[in-house]
This record gives sequence, C-alpha cells and structure tokens, in this order.
Amino acid sequence: MNLKESAPEWFMELQDMITAGVESYESTKMVEKENKREGWHQRHRTIYGDTFEKAVIAYSCVSGEFKEEFAKEIPGTENNKEYWASGISVIFHPMNPHVPAMHMNTRYIITGKEWLGGGFDFTPCLPNDDYELWYHNKVKELCDNHDESYYEDFRKKCDEYFYLPHRNETRGIGGIFYEYFSPQEMSFEFHKDVGKGFFETAMKTFEMFHTKEYTDADKAAQQIKRGRYVEFNLLNDRGTRFGLKTGGDTEAILASLPPTADWR
Amino acid sequence: MNLKESAPEWFMELQDMITAGVESYESTKMVEKENKREGWHQRHRTIYGDTFEKAVIAYSCVSGEFKEEFAKEIPGTENNKEYWASGISVIFHPMNPHVPAMHMNTRYIITGKEWLGGGFDFTPCLPNDDYELWYHNKVKELCDNHDESYYEDFRKKCDEYFYLPHRNETRGIGGIFYEYFSPQEMSFEFHKDVGKGFFETAMKTFEMFHTKEYTDADKAAQQIKRGRYVEFNLLNDRGTRFGLKTGGDTEAILASLPPTADWR
Repeated sequence: MNLKESAPEWFMELQDMITAGVESYESTKMVEKENKREGWHQRHRTIYGDTFEKAVIAYSCVSGEFKEEFAKEIPGTENNKEYWASGISVIFHPMNPHVPAMHMNTRYIITGKEWLGGGFDFTPCLPNDDYELWYHNKVKELCDNHDESYYEDFRKKCDEYFYLPHRNETRGIGGIFYEYFSPQEMSFEFHKDVGKGFFETAMKTFEMFHTKEYTDADKAAQQIKRGRYVEFNLLNDRGTRFGLKTGGDTEAILASLPPTADWR
Repeated sequence: MNLKESAPEWFMELQDMITAGVESYESTKMVEKENKREGWHQRHRTIYGDTFEKAVIAYSCVSGEFKEEFAKEIPGTENNKEYWASGISVIFHPMNPHVPAMHMNTRYIITGKEWLGGGFDFTPCLPNDDYELWYHNKVKELCDNHDESYYEDFRKKCDEYFYLPHRNETRGIGGIFYEYFSPQEMSFEFHKDVGKGFFETAMKTFEMFHTKEYTDADKAAQQIKRGRYVEFNLLNDRGTRFGLKTGGDTEAILASLPPTADWR
C-alpha cells in the first residue's frame, strides 16, 4: 500500500482514537459533519462538552487545483497547480483552566513535490513549571526515538511560529512544528508518533488536571488567555488568513477559535 | 485661532461631553490614562460598567515622523515623513443586547497635505427594522444640514469599509465614513456635527433600550455578534493591522475589542 492510501487511513484511525478519548470524558457523542464527493472527503467532529468546553477533530483528504495567488506560496506548483492533501487537525479548549488548550495537526501534501508537515503546541492559562517540564520531556522523548536533532529544531520552529509580535509573547509553552519534509527524509512513523504522542500527552494532562478545583480568577485568566489565542489565530496564523483570503470554508477555518474569550 | 489649535480643543470638549453622558448612567467614573510629553498628548478613558459593559473614549494629539513602510500608505509624505494628528475615537459595547454596539471616530491629520476623516457606525445584535430606519434618518439629517451628497456617499463608503468578506456580511447597519477631505473642501463644522450627532443618537438609543428586558438567547446573540466584531477588527480593520505592524501601543489599538465574545 502506498502512502497516498495509507496516510489517509492513518489519519482516520487517529481521528477515531482521539474521538474515543474525548468521548470517554463526556456524556454525549461528538457531532460529525461529513462532506464526501469524488476526490474530496472531510469529516469534522465537534463537541461542546463539560470537560472539553470545545473540541474539534477534523480529518480531510482533498484534491484540486490551487488558485493562482495561492499556488505562488506553495512549493512544487511551478508547472502544475494540482494538489492532493490529507491530514488531521485537533483543537481542545478545556473547561478547567488548569488544563492547557491544545492544538495538533499532521498532514501529507502532494503537488509537484510531496511533504509531511505538522506538530502540536499546548497553551496553559495558569503557570505550572512542573507541568511544563513534564510536557517538554514527553515531547523530547517522542522526538528522540526518531532523530536526536528533531526536538531542538522543531521546538524552536514552534516557538517562532506561535508568537504574537504585538504582545511580545508566545501563544503558549510551545511543542514542535515541522514542514516540508519529504517522506524519504522523514519516516511516516515519526508523523504517526507525533499524533499518538500528542494523544497520550493530552489525555494524561486531562487526567491530571480536569477535576482540579479552580477559582473565578483562574477562569478569568483562562478567558484572557483565550483572547490572546483569538488574536494569534486572526492576526498571525498564516493558515487562517490564507484560507479566508482564498475563499475557504469560514466555519472550518475558524473552528480553532475558543468557545468564549475576554478582553476585560 | 487656527484649526491646529481649535481642532484638539474641540476633540477634548467632545470627549468631556461624551464622558459625562456615559457617567450619567454609571455609579463609578471612567478611568483615565493620560500620556503627555512635548508634541504628544493621549487621554484615554475606559469604563467597565453596568450599562456600558465596556466604553472607551480616547482623545489624542500626537506628532512625529512616520516609519518608511508606514509613510508609503499615507498621502503627503513623499518629501517629508513628519505628521501631526489629532482626533477622538469612541467605542461602546452595551450590557443590554437591545442596545447596538457603537463606534465613532473623527480626526484631523497634517502631513505635506492636511485632511479630515471620520464617521460612525452602529452594530445591533438583534433585528429591529424600526430602529434601523430611525437611526439612518438621524444620520441623514445631520449630513443634509451640510451637503446633500454626503449621506449617500458616506453611507456607501461605510458599508464598503465595515464588511467581513469571509462572512459575506457587514459589521452592522452602517452609518457614515469619510476620509481625505481638506478643511477647505469640508467644513470643520460638519466634523463637529458628526461628533455631536453621534453623541445625541447614541444617548437617545441607550435611553430607548438600556432597560428593555432581554433573554439569555438575546445575550447569546450579542456574544456571537461580538465575535464577528473581533473578526472584523483583527482580520479586516486597516487601522488595527497597521497600528500593530508598525509597533503601536497594543492595548490602545485593541481597545475597541468587546469585553467578551463567543464562537459557540
């Protein structure tokens, strides 16, 4: 089986795995919206729950032709604007402010070139040095299993990307971010381990903190941090701005926004 | 007295007038932050009140030299990047969802050229055709007192500017918006009447609706509309993006954001 078949299968399997994890905490199922036609498959799952105040797990496998202005910014489109792309993206906005907001995305893209890209990053709302240390060790461990240069490189890229220049602060405590690795350079097994590693780390984090008592002030701090999340996504996130400019599905593109936010 | 002296005086007088209007509804005073040095005066007033869930009334009279990249987009900076600018901007995010969100700004800018620009626009969260009609009549009246072409021209510009392409909707029900009128072309008296007309219309609107009963669903609709307000300001508003890119004061630039917003 080639990667163009096995990659989407993996992304769907991972989507089911993470969905089961989310639903194990909730009394209702995630709501699925599916959009399927020739060369196009999107399966978005959303829940506004009691533990996951908002969770979105989105799988897609789509193909088509980039618009001219879009193509310019994508490698491998010089001679041909056709693309094929499959991936999964996950966003968790937890109810309990002791649980960080979490984001993960892994994708496999084919134009005239082909590459893997992805990563994940966590955004705590309350300071917790011990947790931060534990989290980065988890991330390092999953990277070191594949290549000892990955963790440092990808953590740096993550900090650079998830940065709010107008606030002079990072979105959260980072994680890893990588792009433009051909499947020859980077094993798809690493890509899978990023998904699995995210899932395990996320679930373990919920387990640790989702029942921890919190004050109104803690919730208020979460709301302010969510405001920063909105600012990053609308002002700085390349994918969001690009998607909206090129006429993508607004609801899907803005699915990562928190359920609520404050600027008080 | 020339306009460079009388304009800032008017903007300060208008700030005091509107401040008194806001405070007449609240049990506490607006909080003032003043920043004054040679060639630089900012006086921002903010309240998180019971009627005005958030109100900001910002006066400024500042001067300096535009940065290279900033200057390119400003008329009259070809030979000299110096500027002088004075103005007032107002944002009201009312507690009661029957009262529209309101925004007003009038400014006088001098570079190698000099011009007046400004306008105001209202954003109801709940449909109310009678109010919309009443509102636009008020706006038309104040325009017609000066020039019968103003209302149609400036209302159109307002609708074009306060538009969210990714939602295919306007921010609110519009109002007026104008820019680049020299004080020879446009009477400063019109500029003053925009400020006064806004103030009267805003106060009358609060009077009509601020005690009107509302449901949780009405408040939820307001929260969603506020989310759109955030989207416009961060994705589409030229001033916001420009200010942040050129290293302006983030808190001041983002002062127009609503106190809270939802994307549920």
